[in-house]
Amino acid sequence: MTAPDFCLADTACEHMVADVPTARPETPVAQVIAALRGQHFACADTIFVTDAGGALQGIVRINDLFANGAACIAEIMEPEHEAVTADADQEAIAQLAIRLNMIAVPVVDDAGHLIGAVPPEALFRILREEHMEDLQRLAGIGAHEAGPEAALDAPLRDRFARRLPWLVFGLAASTIVTLVMIRFEEALQANVTVAFFVPALVYIAGAIGAQAVSVSVRGLSTQDVSIAALLRDEMAIGLAIGAALGLLAGGGVLAVFGDALLALAVGIAVLAGGAVSAVVGFALPWAFKRLGSDPAMGSGPVCTVIQDAASLLIYFGVVSALIL
Amino acid sequence: MTAPDFCLADTACEHMVADVPTARPETPVAQVIAALRGQHFACADTIFVTDAGGALQGIVRINDLFANGAACIAEIMEPEHEAVTADADQEAIAQLAIRLNMIAVPVVDDAGHLIGAVPPEALFRILREEHMEDLQRLAGIGAHEAGPEAALDAPLRDRFARRLPWLVFGLAASTIVTLVMIRFEEALQANVTVAFFVPALVYIAGAIGAQAVSVSVRGLSTQDVSIAALLRDEMAIGLAIGAALGLLAGGGVLAVFGDALLALAVGIAVLAGGAVSAVVGFALPWAFKRLGSDPAMGSGPVCTVIQDAASLLIYFGVVSALIL
Repeated sequence: MTAPDFCLADTACEHMVADVPTARPETPVAQVIAALRGQHFACADTIFVTDAGGALQGIVRINDLFANGAACIAEIMEPEHEAVTADADQEAIAQLAIRLNMIAVPVVDDAGHLIGAVPPEALFRILREEHMEDLQRLAGIGAHEAGPEAALDAPLRDRFARRLPWLVFGLAASTIVTLVMIRFEEALQANVTVAFFVPALVYIAGAIGAQAVSVSVRGLSTQDVSIAALLRDEMAIGLAIGAALGLLAGGGVLAVFGDALLALAVGIAVLAGGAVSAVVGFALPWAFKRLGSDPAMGSGPVCTVIQDAASLLIYFGVVSALIL
Repeated sequence: MTAPDFCLADTACEHMVADVPTARPETPVAQVIAALRGQHFACADTIFVTDAGGALQGIVRINDLFANGAACIAEIMEPEHEAVTADADQEAIAQLAIRLNMIAVPVVDDAGHLIGAVPPEALFRILREEHMEDLQRLAGIGAHEAGPEAALDAPLRDRFARRLPWLVFGLAASTIVTLVMIRFEEALQANVTVAFFVPALVYIAGAIGAQAVSVSVRGLSTQDVSIAALLRDEMAIGLAIGAALGLLAGGGVLAVFGDALLALAVGIAVLAGGAVSAVVGFALPWAFKRLGSDPAMGSGPVCTVIQDAASLLIYFGVVSALIL
């Protein structure tokens, strides 16, 4: 078995070890155990079973190797042995391990020949890294080449540089929201009370959207969930949440300001803005994934600015129609 | 070895298995290997070494058990064998495994006697669960008793119910921001242009704060990082980011509106609001952890509303001082 010469970052290749114990299906169990002795494997917790040509046939967990009084490996091997290729994305490898309850994931070449395995220690690191990366990306912090853990004690200038770009982009994108405000200058001038609810509306749209982004990012990292079904659900939940919060917000405005039309405008803006935010927050990470980018990127300025602008457009639209 | 009768959720107890292979330091290696055969262990990848009384002495990874021509276990065991107790939090267990490169973590009673181990499969599940939980909590979605994975296909009503509470609380908290707006009604009435920048300011404060929250949550889950140093860094980065964005925002306002005082007000509000948001976003998760709560909770409405209110207070304060 030989490992590839060149590895892409965050792939099986980067994490695999080549010296793993192997056996043939017909080999007697006693012989396999005897052969393990005196050798140091980087990952002796799983025996990888191949045919004479080196094609992966199955795996035997060490727990089962010892336990069984079986005559040969074929009797105890797990033939459902899904494997990954060297260029497989690290997140998919960890998911496969969890789904199939494997503690080491076999790596094969394009012809299905075993070239190594991703050992449990590497799977721990991958899971931890994906966790930290999601936290970073959702917050719009650029990745550090030494991994997300290194990022915490990188030089200040470096941390500053990885955080600024999204924010600058966000600031630029937020001019769209400012343009929406300018567009409705007349409404604001006619009744300045209308401006009071702008920050709360922006806040609520963002909060509903953040939940939708979280559901989307989680859904996309779980292979057996249907995105169409989740999107339909998200629309329903967004409308239900928007309706509940819209009633509360409208009721609150009516109670305090005694202005039924203003209360109606705020209520409708929360309802419709909430539903739009839920759908946008859910769909953008999915779109980013389809474009080959990280789904967690979909939570950035693009998402927030669309949500904010949509909420305010709906709000001022209703205000203009009802009040002015 | 007997497992405890009752387990708290998300503790070592919940994930541990009791049937793990054990050995004494003085046992010959060959005898340990022979003894493994014919038994099924839930976790045969690590041999746990105890003294005659059952007190944990060290661990031997299966890789090393086979590799060495050592006479007895003491020669190959890893005596740095930090263990956890049954009530240890699951996140701490996974961190320990990663830090010490263990693939199974020994669980001991208060007297240091081995009672079992958390196997690699459980460590995978824990790492995955903590990841999903952080995504949920950062978005203010309540935990599902069946775990974060179950949450995606829970009934719609259930998902709605887990998302609404934080949003209702957020809506209530956002009245504080509305009160800030009302407080400055006069400034708005005198110059409605002032209102144009409100959503962008709220957006930028939130975006800077979200980055700080992410750094804080990551820092808190890494034991060997000093919080005081991170807070000082966060203050410096917040000020630097605020200054950079403040210059850009102020410059933009000056270029488009040609109003130097308004540009200065927007610039100062972005600068000061950004620094406040960074510090609040960083400190709140830490405070939540000190109060025994999950740090990721610190990203909720409390954090956002403080950031939004602070940004707007600074903005209107400067506007009132400079323009009116």
